[in-house]
Amino acid sequence: MKVSELGEFGLIDLLAKMIPAPRNKQLILGIGDDAAAWRTGAATQLVTTDSLFQDVHFSLITTPWEALGAKALAVNLSDIAAMGGVPEYAVVSLALPANTEVADVTALYRGIIELAGQFEVAIIGGDTCRAPLVSITITVLGRTVNQEEKILTRSAARPGDRVAVTGCPGTAAAGLEMLTGELRFDPEAAAQLRDAFLHPVPRIAEGQLLVGQGVKAAIDISDGLVADLAHVCRASRVGARVETERLPIHPAVKANFGNRSLEMALGGGEDYELLFTAGAGTMAKVKEAAACPVTVIGEIVADKESRVIVVDASGRPVPRDKAGWEHFKAA
Amino acid sequence: MKVSELGEFGLIDLLAKMIPAPRNKQLILGIGDDAAAWRTGAATQLVTTDSLFQDVHFSLITTPWEALGAKALAVNLSDIAAMGGVPEYAVVSLALPANTEVADVTALYRGIIELAGQFEVAIIGGDTCRAPLVSITITVLGRTVNQEEKILTRSAARPGDRVAVTGCPGTAAAGLEMLTGELRFDPEAAAQLRDAFLHPVPRIAEGQLLVGQGVKAAIDISDGLVADLAHVCRASRVGARVETERLPIHPAVKANFGNRSLEMALGGGEDYELLFTAGAGTMAKVKEAAACPVTVIGEIVADKESRVIVVDASGRPVPRDKAGWEHFKAA
Repeated sequence: MKVSELGEFGLIDLLAKMIPAPRNKQLILGIGDDAAAWRTGAATQLVTTDSLFQDVHFSLITTPWEALGAKALAVNLSDIAAMGGVPEYAVVSLALPANTEVADVTALYRGIIELAGQFEVAIIGGDTCRAPLVSITITVLGRTVNQEEKILTRSAARPGDRVAVTGCPGTAAAGLEMLTGELRFDPEAAAQLRDAFLHPVPRIAEGQLLVGQGVKAAIDISDGLVADLAHVCRASRVGARVETERLPIHPAVKANFGNRSLEMALGGGEDYELLFTAGAGTMAKVKEAAACPVTVIGEIVADKESRVIVVDASGRPVPRDKAGWEHFKAA
Repeated sequence: MKVSELGEFGLIDLLAKMIPAPRNKQLILGIGDDAAAWRTGAATQLVTTDSLFQDVHFSLITTPWEALGAKALAVNLSDIAAMGGVPEYAVVSLALPANTEVADVTALYRGIIELAGQFEVAIIGGDTCRAPLVSITITVLGRTVNQEEKILTRSAARPGDRVAVTGCPGTAAAGLEMLTGELRFDPEAAAQLRDAFLHPVPRIAEGQLLVGQGVKAAIDISDGLVADLAHVCRASRVGARVETERLPIHPAVKANFGNRSLEMALGGGEDYELLFTAGAGTMAKVKEAAACPVTVIGEIVADKESRVIVVDASGRPVPRDKAGWEHFKAA
């Protein structure tokens, strides 16, 4: 059945029934009124919003509907992770062509609902409308841990800090290239690369761990490692030096993309890993406490021009072709 | 200059500079990080989200960029008004074709900023990306008045309640028809109709007044008077009876659209007036206290099938061709 046969209100009813009743007792009013309402204790609240547009951020050829839904939520949860926060609520604004299959829309929502359940996020509202292309804008609301005002910001990096990343940046970019080019790798590598691109896991627990260990500066890697590190440097008015030798490159990326692995690790976006900075002592504690790989890849230096320098094993600057993903700019 | 020449980060910088620094002292972190953060006292929070898509919700032929920005915010503020709440924060997700003029984008933001200033709403974040068509999704966060949990809901209408509206529903639809058809009316009427469509004023003060006077049930008129009253009836499991003779039709609509005025008042969307229900005593107090026109147009009746019946002066049901605006459904 097409969404045009079901109609807007029929579709809203169908989706509202799919969404589990929130177990959050602070919620007063969820889906179905002009706004959602919930109680809050005296706490620091967080909000973030991100959109995915068809043929800009995703292609329906490489991204199944269920993965698309999960990813639209994951990119927002990742922003809450980069603040060290606890995600609590989400509102979903969905635009769909009239000839979209209802089964595809419910698959998309299954993806959202499953990831939301995993992180105990309640879907409390949204908007559904017709449009020539599919787009999803999700806004996530959250709070800081323990009612304190401790948050991770982009502006708190200081000269002398170590720069570290969780996981293996570049793996999502490799996954996208594999899917787009219909490249054939061995099944295990293919599954790892596909998952990195289609099912990024927001580093919520890790963000909270960073705050708990005293880390002050972090960002999530959405635009690409160097581009996102540059955001931190600009906001903190410092520079950074990254050593290619230290970059944690996923074995499946190295095995299948060889020399291009480095470019993927530096410039590939959509990893949704965390990049953060801290003094050596704090960094040692984080590495000890973290359940996921944490790799120091460089350091923060004094630089009023906020440059990010990438050097090879011998300390020579590496030319970079691709500094990250920027919308609008002509190639 | 085109946004493609400025680039995503250039555009974000430009817009961030336009947005006034929030005077709200509860804000910890605004635009420029992964999420925005603010303190909150123990209160009931509200959230709502709404999208406007080019050629679905607006045409750039009839809607200037500045009006578009204001309207994208107004439709969300109207949802907060329909809860009787106080809007506080907004996040703006904007999609633009690469060849959009930067001057048009800044005009759009001027519209958002001016209306936000008028209602003391702080713009604290957002997202900007490239897309084939213009779209704006705004999420507004707010709270209830006086830290109480009193809110206006769609589900609180009771048999015997009077049904009332603020202002003159149908005026926006008349304005749209005038602009689309390039109809020529006398300048004063034309200005009134144009404003009703392009510059709807969210009924924030009125919503708060309703809560203060003890009203429990309300909705804003976005889909059309009958369609929105039907939402209230379904949520409250009641029916409603509307008398055409009592409908407050704007003189400029009556003068220029004659017999079609009734259809516009009943079915025309985008008025962003409030429709609410209350007992006769409460209704009398509201009419006394309100600064804007408040007109009783009918009553709530017991009806398990939640029908909205429209009757003429002699009590005969009026056939309706157009029950309101619904996305997706084939015409």
